[in-house]
Amino acid sequence: MSIPARASARAFNLATAVSDFSFNKLVIFGVGLIGGSLARALRERGTTQAGRVIGVGRSPASVERARELGVVDAIASLDDEAQLRAALDGADLVLLAVPVAQTGPLLTRIAPLLDSATIVTDAGSTKSDVVAAARAALGEKIAQFVPAHPIAGRESSGVEAALPDLYVGRNVVICALPENPAASVERVDAMWRATGAVTRTMDPAQHDRVFAAVSHLPHVLSFALVEQILGEADAELKFSFAAGGFRDFTRIAASSPEMWRDVCVANRGALLEELDAYTRVLARLREAIEAGDGAALEAVFVRSRAARTAWQERGGKPASGPVQS
Amino acid sequence: MSIPARASARAFNLATAVSDFSFNKLVIFGVGLIGGSLARALRERGTTQAGRVIGVGRSPASVERARELGVVDAIASLDDEAQLRAALDGADLVLLAVPVAQTGPLLTRIAPLLDSATIVTDAGSTKSDVVAAARAALGEKIAQFVPAHPIAGRESSGVEAALPDLYVGRNVVICALPENPAASVERVDAMWRATGAVTRTMDPAQHDRVFAAVSHLPHVLSFALVEQILGEADAELKFSFAAGGFRDFTRIAASSPEMWRDVCVANRGALLEELDAYTRVLARLREAIEAGDGAALEAVFVRSRAARTAWQERGGKPASGPVQS
Repeated sequence: MSIPARASARAFNLATAVSDFSFNKLVIFGVGLIGGSLARALRERGTTQAGRVIGVGRSPASVERARELGVVDAIASLDDEAQLRAALDGADLVLLAVPVAQTGPLLTRIAPLLDSATIVTDAGSTKSDVVAAARAALGEKIAQFVPAHPIAGRESSGVEAALPDLYVGRNVVICALPENPAASVERVDAMWRATGAVTRTMDPAQHDRVFAAVSHLPHVLSFALVEQILGEADAELKFSFAAGGFRDFTRIAASSPEMWRDVCVANRGALLEELDAYTRVLARLREAIEAGDGAALEAVFVRSRAARTAWQERGGKPASGPVQS
Repeated sequence: MSIPARASARAFNLATAVSDFSFNKLVIFGVGLIGGSLARALRERGTTQAGRVIGVGRSPASVERARELGVVDAIASLDDEAQLRAALDGADLVLLAVPVAQTGPLLTRIAPLLDSATIVTDAGSTKSDVVAAARAALGEKIAQFVPAHPIAGRESSGVEAALPDLYVGRNVVICALPENPAASVERVDAMWRATGAVTRTMDPAQHDRVFAAVSHLPHVLSFALVEQILGEADAELKFSFAAGGFRDFTRIAASSPEMWRDVCVANRGALLEELDAYTRVLARLREAIEAGDGAALEAVFVRSRAARTAWQERGGKPASGPVQS
């Protein structure tokens, strides 16, 4: 796939432009927070020569809402063969922004309708399972699929939560496959850079290990704390005294249950390894607490604080707002 | 102890006043974030007829800094008998704002110097151990000691981090002892209400159970996550991809190691119970992950999200800033 000709005819070059990205037709499956924010970024940030954006979804109401909000130009139903065929016809790019468990069925559904020049990418939080599902669904067309994962989110979900600046300064991991033509990888890379994101590359297994540790496990631990308190007789009293530490620790327990269910199942191998390693650290701390071994506890706390503080000082992925107590 | 006479001579009554609190002399042991913020609240919020505030500390440099900043009027050294005696002479109120393990030694040190009319209170994060230490140190003077715990904090510590509004809208738990005269409890209650705090009462054991669950355990879990990642060969790579979820989950891992060491040891009984209950919840989630049991995971995640969201909507202890993604 080459850059469409009209890109070279661009009449101006914004000082803020971070990319020369342009496209004729982008089809987004799942116009929620992630897909909607990509559409808004490409259309509203002024860094892109944007073509038509088509939204496709399971729920007619939510894709219709995306059109009403002007996030997409047109919509199509996944269940209407003619609409789906028309949507995919001549598309430069297809983004799958759906819970990872839907990747396989969705790719199976659209595989026969894909133009040979269309590049398909995704935004799934796990990668090994997504790649396996894509290989099974696409067969020889696997070369058209460039897996990726934008590291951005909010507790709020749905297209109403979509923001044109959601990806600014965020990492997007591209897990290129050996079959991908370099030009296709560059195209996905350019699309994400146009949103203000920083692109990085990893292989799928490495990706899954890293995010099991820094994202999937913390989500499980956070959900688990709320679950534990809920199970106790004095839950109400406890919640009534919960303050800032609890608030931040459990913020991610307000995340989408469906998405995190899928992530836990899809990345179970790497997640279980991290969970077991974590349980061993907890057991070590438990021993020190039971023994009243303040020195052992302090050694861990000093080390953790130093690492956490250094991470924050290095820029530690800018928050949407300042980190406060 | 009665309200000092000059309180009745107050010439004005601010519309913003939340308390008629006044005092002649307040001695604060440990002029850091907690002690310094109390001093600033009583002196700067205009809700109090403030008398002299004396800071006493282990480190001459930090109490001297408190005086330079105008947080306290005068300072005294713990090691100078004459200074300490002068500081405590005629004090209405003494606040201990030191790590909980220092409560016993500190009370033993000041017990012989306490006027019979002086009320002593504390700001410790644990209460059963503090009460036991206070009984041992004070003997018959235990009636003068009204245990309390302001539920407020920041990662930053030290007197530079002290804020006059730190306690506004925050809970302060007062764990009155059977020996305390009602007037003494009311006096401590009025002092905290003058800072804008909301006062509540619990018995020490109940306090320790509640905070083991909603504060002490989350701190241990947060320190443990950073410790775990640090122990892995690809720690640097993992930290480099950590984003918003990690940031909030580990914010409390930047807390004072010394303070949390003391809390874990002081409240070990209640903390171990919570930690064991938590480990059982994790084991249940591990089983579901290993079995790929999406329905079981989703049930927990849905329940946790609903509880977390309801807590937030009920007011969930206002943050210093809005909760963001």
